[in-house]
Amino acid sequence: MTNGPVRIAVDAMGGDYAPGEVVAGAIAAAREGGVQVGLVGDPDAVGAEMARRDASGLPIMAVPSEGVIEEGEQAALALRQKPRASILVATGLVKKGMADAAVTMGSTGAAMAASAVLLGMLKGIDRPALGGPIIGLAPRTVVVDLGTNVDCRPGQLLSFAVIGSVVANLFYEVESPRVALLSVGGEAGKGNRQVRETTELLAGSLPNFIGNVEANELPTGKADVVVADGFVGNVVMKLTEGLGAGMAELVRQRLRGKLDDEEVEGLAREIYEVNNAVETHGGGPLLGVNGVSVIGHGRGRADAVRRAIGTARRAVEMDFVGMQAEGLERTGSQG
Amino acid sequence: MTNGPVRIAVDAMGGDYAPGEVVAGAIAAAREGGVQVGLVGDPDAVGAEMARRDASGLPIMAVPSEGVIEEGEQAALALRQKPRASILVATGLVKKGMADAAVTMGSTGAAMAASAVLLGMLKGIDRPALGGPIIGLAPRTVVVDLGTNVDCRPGQLLSFAVIGSVVANLFYEVESPRVALLSVGGEAGKGNRQVRETTELLAGSLPNFIGNVEANELPTGKADVVVADGFVGNVVMKLTEGLGAGMAELVRQRLRGKLDDEEVEGLAREIYEVNNAVETHGGGPLLGVNGVSVIGHGRGRADAVRRAIGTARRAVEMDFVGMQAEGLERTGSQG
Repeated sequence: MTNGPVRIAVDAMGGDYAPGEVVAGAIAAAREGGVQVGLVGDPDAVGAEMARRDASGLPIMAVPSEGVIEEGEQAALALRQKPRASILVATGLVKKGMADAAVTMGSTGAAMAASAVLLGMLKGIDRPALGGPIIGLAPRTVVVDLGTNVDCRPGQLLSFAVIGSVVANLFYEVESPRVALLSVGGEAGKGNRQVRETTELLAGSLPNFIGNVEANELPTGKADVVVADGFVGNVVMKLTEGLGAGMAELVRQRLRGKLDDEEVEGLAREIYEVNNAVETHGGGPLLGVNGVSVIGHGRGRADAVRRAIGTARRAVEMDFVGMQAEGLERTGSQG
Repeated sequence: MTNGPVRIAVDAMGGDYAPGEVVAGAIAAAREGGVQVGLVGDPDAVGAEMARRDASGLPIMAVPSEGVIEEGEQAALALRQKPRASILVATGLVKKGMADAAVTMGSTGAAMAASAVLLGMLKGIDRPALGGPIIGLAPRTVVVDLGTNVDCRPGQLLSFAVIGSVVANLFYEVESPRVALLSVGGEAGKGNRQVRETTELLAGSLPNFIGNVEANELPTGKADVVVADGFVGNVVMKLTEGLGAGMAELVRQRLRGKLDDEEVEGLAREIYEVNNAVETHGGGPLLGVNGVSVIGHGRGRADAVRRAIGTARRAVEMDFVGMQAEGLERTGSQG
């Protein structure tokens, strides 16, 4: 818990609509109050966007950086080649204690690499994890990991259960999150080797472990936290997105001419959005990192930026990092 | 290729609506011609169902058995405890050369165990695999394996690619099936250890290998055969089913009162069915088995039974087993 406004370093150059929409979102967040924003980017570009909007009197300042790491660049290499890139400068401000959190709409890989190198990982965590509600039909079910950690050891999956519970608690107001492991059958003996070993570990370590769930139970909200290896979690996220897009198109075709266009489009969009939660609601904080770093969706516009800044503020105010560390300590997660 | 009608041993006791609907479906199949059906089950029950329907003059006869292995029973144990169970007698007829194929709407586990024990596996295959089009939006994309083989070695996944190509070719009329491996990124370096190793093996073994696909590409039909570890394949199948049920309900709620009930229900049912391909279209032949054994969906009624018998007939006539063996031999799949 900090006193005064939360200081957020925003990567003004990251994302499809940077810097314009990022600057607009930062201004909106600053206007809501409670934050002080550093807009990290090319001084001319950021200055021009600020001048074009009414930012007078708001707690926003520009912080110069050089270059940007684009989506698709090899992150580790780009970090060395562009040491003054916006995401590195923004994350560096957090490392130096000059900001409380970093926010980017840019490359997830770059943000993860910058966080891992500059902020470091919490004890027992190998690399940043991604997690959140990815099934719109179960909007408070947090799935961890979504792709960055594959071939997980049972201890890593236990760590994800702990961190996912903190996410469910802080961001989705679930008092005592029920934790489940994704498997191919409800019984403890089902699943692959990794899942069978992890089931035992979770059962022995977490009072809130409710056992294994099958993928068809994900949309029912039966569990508040669903733990999965990053390979499987990524398949779940992307299949949901692909089926959502396909179902939206099917509904559009079938209803065309039967209802007025606006209603058809409204339902098709709802089906698309409920299955594309990351695109719709933006990303979230990186998990397992020793500092707050929030990633928004690359296609997010000003309002998504504003919400990402709000998420970062909440993470700082609720001591997201401290709660993760404490949870990991308590369960003795060794990764 | 056999001369004369294909002889099908049908497990008359398996499935939620046995024996009534099974007998009705067998009669319908016999009436279409080209098959000769042995209805394996309790003689009294089967006889009563036959008497109630007009089976006179059709090539159907009852074959006595004792007991049935229910869904959920531990298959290996049940096989020992009920040596005269209908699925064992039906599969035994195939083993003895007295039938060309077995068909059941009953327990998948029991059918797999009976096939493995009595018919044996093709060279390089450890246990029966399941595969078929499970994404209704891509109705000719065969996904293998769907859950029976977890922790697969790369060689097993190569075998599934080969067998899946035979399925796509024989049952979905795809001339030269394009094979892909399910991963979390299109690039060869992405994925978990299993996938990275398998990508290399498939690239070196299969001329029709088109690389890796991500889960969001499954509904697009980009590949004709998608290979996955049974754990991941099962997650894909069940998540599709769960999301389909959820989307159907969402559409039902949103459209109620805006269109007439029948149209609302029709669209909701279509969305459910397109995402519940196994329940809608029935199962398919067990893969990698040295004999033809077709499993239909437990909730299938007479028409599903008739189609399952048709699938078995086609598998025999097209030499499904021989083509799998030949494919495995050609690629040198060692499992």
